Amino acid sequence: MFQFRNDYSMGAHPRVLEALAATNLEGNIGYGADGYCEKCATLIRELCQAPNAKVECLIGGTQTNFTAIAAFLRPWEGVICAQSGHVNGHEGGAVEATGHKLFQVPAGPDGKVTAAAMEPVLEMCRDPHVAKPGLVYISDATETGGVYTLAELETLSQYCKANGMLLFLDGARLGAALTAEDNDVSLPDLARLCDAFYIGGTKNGALMGEALVIVNPALQPEFFRIKKQRGAVLAKGWLLGVQFQALLEDGLYWELAKQANAVAGQLQKGLMDKGYAMANVTTTNQIFPIVPESLLETLDKVCTYEVWCKNPDGTVTVRFVASFASTEADAEGLLVALPNAR
Amino acid sequence: MFQFRNDYSMGAHPRVLEALAATNLEGNIGYGADGYCEKCATLIRELCQAPNAKVECLIGGTQTNFTAIAAFLRPWEGVICAQSGHVNGHEGGAVEATGHKLFQVPAGPDGKVTAAAMEPVLEMCRDPHVAKPGLVYISDATETGGVYTLAELETLSQYCKANGMLLFLDGARLGAALTAEDNDVSLPDLARLCDAFYIGGTKNGALMGEALVIVNPALQPEFFRIKKQRGAVLAKGWLLGVQFQALLEDGLYWELAKQANAVAGQLQKGLMDKGYAMANVTTTNQIFPIVPESLLETLDKVCTYEVWCKNPDGTVTVRFVASFASTEADAEGLLVALPNAR
Amino acid sequence: MFQFRNDYSMGAHPRVLEALAATNLEGNIGYGADGYCEKCATLIRELCQAPNAKVECLIGGTQTNFTAIAAFLRPWEGVICAQSGHVNGHEGGAVEATGHKLFQVPAGPDGKVTAAAMEPVLEMCRDPHVAKPGLVYISDATETGGVYTLAELETLSQYCKANGMLLFLDGARLGAALTAEDNDVSLPDLARLCDAFYIGGTKNGALMGEALVIVNPALQPEFFRIKKQRGAVLAKGWLLGVQFQALLEDGLYWELAKQANAVAGQLQKGLMDKGYAMANVTTTNQIFPIVPESLLETLDKVCTYEVWCKNPDGTVTVRFVASFASTEADAEGLLVALPNAR
Amino acid sequence: MFQFRNDYSMGAHPRVLEALAATNLEGNIGYGADGYCEKCATLIRELCQAPNAKVECLIGGTQTNFTAIAAFLRPWEGVICAQSGHVNGHEGGAVEATGHKLFQVPAGPDGKVTAAAMEPVLEMCRDPHVAKPGLVYISDATETGGVYTLAELETLSQYCKANGMLLFLDGARLGAALTAEDNDVSLPDLARLCDAFYIGGTKNGALMGEALVIVNPALQPEFFRIKKQRGAVLAKGWLLGVQFQALLEDGLYWELAKQANAVAGQLQKGLMDKGYAMANVTTTNQIFPIVPESLLETLDKVCTYEVWCKNPDGTVTVRFVASFASTEADAEGLLVALPNAR
Repeated sequence: MFQFRNDYSMGAHPRVLEALAATNLEGNIGYGADGYCEKCATLIRELCQAPNAKVECLIGGTQTNFTAIAAFLRPWEGVICAQSGHVNGHEGGAVEATGHKLFQVPAGPDGKVTAAAMEPVLEMCRDPHVAKPGLVYISDATETGGVYTLAELETLSQYCKANGMLLFLDGARLGAALTAEDNDVSLPDLARLCDAFYIGGTKNGALMGEALVIVNPALQPEFFRIKKQRGAVLAKGWLLGVQFQALLEDGLYWELAKQANAVAGQLQKGLMDKGYAMANVTTTNQIFPIVPESLLETLDKVCTYEVWCKNPDGTVTVRFVASFASTEADAEGLLVALPNAR
Repeated sequence: MFQFRNDYSMGAHPRVLEALAATNLEGNIGYGADGYCEKCATLIRELCQAPNAKVECLIGGTQTNFTAIAAFLRPWEGVICAQSGHVNGHEGGAVEATGHKLFQVPAGPDGKVTAAAMEPVLEMCRDPHVAKPGLVYISDATETGGVYTLAELETLSQYCKANGMLLFLDGARLGAALTAEDNDVSLPDLARLCDAFYIGGTKNGALMGEALVIVNPALQPEFFRIKKQRGAVLAKGWLLGVQFQALLEDGLYWELAKQANAVAGQLQKGLMDKGYAMANVTTTNQIFPIVPESLLETLDKVCTYEVWCKNPDGTVTVRFVASFASTEADAEGLLVALPNAR
Repeated sequence: MFQFRNDYSMGAHPRVLEALAATNLEGNIGYGADGYCEKCATLIRELCQAPNAKVECLIGGTQTNFTAIAAFLRPWEGVICAQSGHVNGHEGGAVEATGHKLFQVPAGPDGKVTAAAMEPVLEMCRDPHVAKPGLVYISDATETGGVYTLAELETLSQYCKANGMLLFLDGARLGAALTAEDNDVSLPDLARLCDAFYIGGTKNGALMGEALVIVNPALQPEFFRIKKQRGAVLAKGWLLGVQFQALLEDGLYWELAKQANAVAGQLQKGLMDKGYAMANVTTTNQIFPIVPESLLETLDKVCTYEVWCKNPDGTVTVRFVASFASTEADAEGLLVALPNAR
Repeated sequence: MFQFRNDYSMGAHPRVLEALAATNLEGNIGYGADGYCEKCATLIRELCQAPNAKVECLIGGTQTNFTAIAAFLRPWEGVICAQSGHVNGHEGGAVEATGHKLFQVPAGPDGKVTAAAMEPVLEMCRDPHVAKPGLVYISDATETGGVYTLAELETLSQYCKANGMLLFLDGARLGAALTAEDNDVSLPDLARLCDAFYIGGTKNGALMGEALVIVNPALQPEFFRIKKQRGAVLAKGWLLGVQFQALLEDGLYWELAKQANAVAGQLQKGLMDKGYAMANVTTTNQIFPIVPESLLETLDKVCTYEVWCKNPDGTVTVRFVASFASTEADAEGLLVALPNAR
């Protein structure tokens, strides 16, 4: 079975696990007040060229999204996101459970939010009987594998500033985005353009962990208290610092992401060569081939994957995700196992 | 330095870490739908003699407390807890952040909740202008090291039933409680007497993880959805199942707790022999000696510990906590390093 | 100036005000425990042929919506509503502020929710990573003046039951709906088909007040406590009972609604005779003519009204609302003051 | 029956009702955007000598408390209040339902909060694992009839500023407080010392209504949106403006409060002359005589009142409240009807 179900089916990269084992019985202060979290924060500030950013490690993506949003917004403010945004469709109503409205805007197959799509929401919300949009949530890479260009982020950032909204970037798959072949965005760009964003560990080699970078100084005070309140403080907090240090200090994080992108790209190209259409051609570690329903039986035998959606014409869009543990041989093997599209 | 700061200063017990390493690159379904979580649930149901209980692994104690309470209560209901209860003093207002009022009742130095202490709250809440007490939160061991007797739990359970309240037991230190020399409570007792309780992993040998046992069938439906909503679903959920299996299948969990209790007991006895008074004589892994303020300087040099509170007479109550990694030699060494009380 | 801005621009119908004056200094128990609220509840139960319904008077529509929804749902459940639903667009994110997600579904110009429109939401929400739809919110009359037929309500009710969802009907304009010429729904029908609904006073002759009818017995217990918690208990609660008694005991409520509908209908017919198109032809007290933008200047001089939306073709949809205080002379006068459409 | 149950048993003062009748069919813009609310705001700003204050009319006290607190605080902040504070004991957990923790501090029989009582809470909350006290809630008059002195308010205000907390004053019975014989506080004092406070209408001559004065400019933006979100925007908002104008423009508000205080004072003095002890001697419109339980039967026959609490020695503290409609004859009559204490 070739494993393409998702990028959180494996544990940690061996070097990450070794770092955990090496520090296992050292004895560390709890709750993230340890030296590893401190070093991790320093390292991330350097990588981002953001000496005044606050770096906080949380455990998972949903948790990071709702904790940050709850911390940053006032109660009458809502969040603009793509209809396909993770906070809208896959987090159990977590943002709303903190009291904030989501304004969903349509996004293209690439899953990106645009100023044009937000304009009607802003127009509607001039009426004070509606909640006020206070934050724009975007993901990079997006839920459908898209990658924002620097120009797009510059535009979004300006639009947010001009309209009194914060820009928050979900980086659960930030490694995949920043190592994509068509990417022209850097960590310092993100630190300059976003109010806050995070560097996802769970989907790129860590057991768990997301490193939230709060750039906007107005959003930094007392963040620990709300992190505690929302269950996002790991008692053995150094586990997160140790993992991010292992991933980031030698660039392992970027190698792993690049590898996952490469395998996904190889698989995508191979499938297109075999005549399959893609719902959305991507450059990251998720790909979305459109297959006849009859192919699912074959797929079930040779690989793990997910049915993404059923299409009106009877075809099915499936999702293959490559992870840090995926290899070229996996892609090659799966391609061999699959028939041509017709 | 002898380590007595707390029971979450070390990583995992080596056998737990080995189990994680052994399963690291297997490839597992995410979100707790894997076979390890299933086995862990089966094992716990057997240990509890509760074949219909629902077992859900969450990541940490605060998270388990507020997620369970939010899931179990209706919005007009509140929680009765001891003033010294963890949900009141050390969770950043997490329960209130889910919308529920806390009714704090006084508890003795042992930290236990009694029916007598709750009576005035129930009396006050007959007035429908007040929130309705819907759940009683207790901890075993308590925050100050106390252990409930079976008779006490029977009484509490009956009182809760008679008054339309759920009984919820925070078991972050359940290992310490159930292996204490004066304990007469078993897991099946808990399953019979509580609506829900949890078996704490974080403070007894796991990297992280609390296994919530939902016995009351009315509280079971859709728990996964609220777990997701509150950020308590670990993407790589099998990590929790693997750890609990390693801890519970051969009784390692109880051995570790017994060892921590023994070291703490040895230290407590030694200190009493040296003439120190205890704020609360305990049988679990936390002890609370009263020391002159002048001793803190010495303590800072020889061990890690916590100042628990300053007393009106100028003395200081400190807390020493033994963990799975504590040894008799640690206790002995610390005792040697400390002077007699006078 | 002809008054067509809305149906809450006037105080109370004179007979309602007289009833308030007559009881002003009687001395009554507070918080709705008085005899007037009791009589009002009895009367409404009779009108609804629902002897076991619980009737609770609240102050306004937004408050009634979020209090009822918060009371009825579990935290992981969300609300399905039309995109044009009042809870979505005009209540400041009130439902989300109680922690519940809104699933907006498209509605036609008549503002009605259909099973077909809900199907994709239910499909998506089979995935437990999404909130669970627990309640369907509909308005009768709808926000755009539409009226549900009995057949439509029967279908919705069955669909809700089949899918484990409650059916909640916002009756802020229930008088307008039930007296519309094409209406075939009665209060007993509503009591049979909905889990809860309300009879709106604010928009039909009262100073304020909405009478919530909770038919489903599972939703009745402890409602007073959450009503108190959400600020929906009027200290001088009898003011609501007195008003509803005045409106309902002799059928004044229906007379006022019928009158408002008649004036709106007269205005709509006159405008159509003059050549104006309607965005949505209605039978209730709101009408939605499409006018050239150049007409707004004239309108500003002769009447109060609201701009509903600007259309892509440069025309403007405006809203005229007739109230209990509107007269045929008002409609006639406004028609005379307006030019033919072309 | 002499009416002393509370100060919200009667409707509005006749002059207030006349003002409502006189404006009943004028036609006014909804939601408080009318001229009466504007005039009311101007008038209150003048009375408070606070030209930059924002004045917002809400409907009731519980609603005003939780809406203001939710608007003013960040999610990790809690509220310090007296154990006897209305927000703690009589609002159904309303503040907690907005997500904020209450820190209850002991208060004397006069119900006043002191800096000394708050000190342990502040000490405890230096630990970031606890919520942060962000606002101090006081009532004037207090729930037990006490009146703050100017010196006390000055001290509280300084203490709040020094500790980064807002000072919020519940003025549901502000009329009673500011007209008490021992009062030395003025509206301009309140505007200088509090971040926000309100002038209660419900308990002093209005049908309903509380005028919230937000002095601190940082708390003013977007208040309307959260007011809408919490159901505190009355559709026919001018009803509140009209009532406050009637009460405040000629000083009727203060006359009514003074009258209620005088009747309560007369009753208190008479009871003391008859040998009854008071749980708390007050100067406002609530008095708290201690009576033998055997007297309740008599009381039930001659007056309305409330049992406040049962005392350990078998006596009962009862509460008599005088309202704007109470007369000297009421007090005299009741005194005649009651026996001497022994």
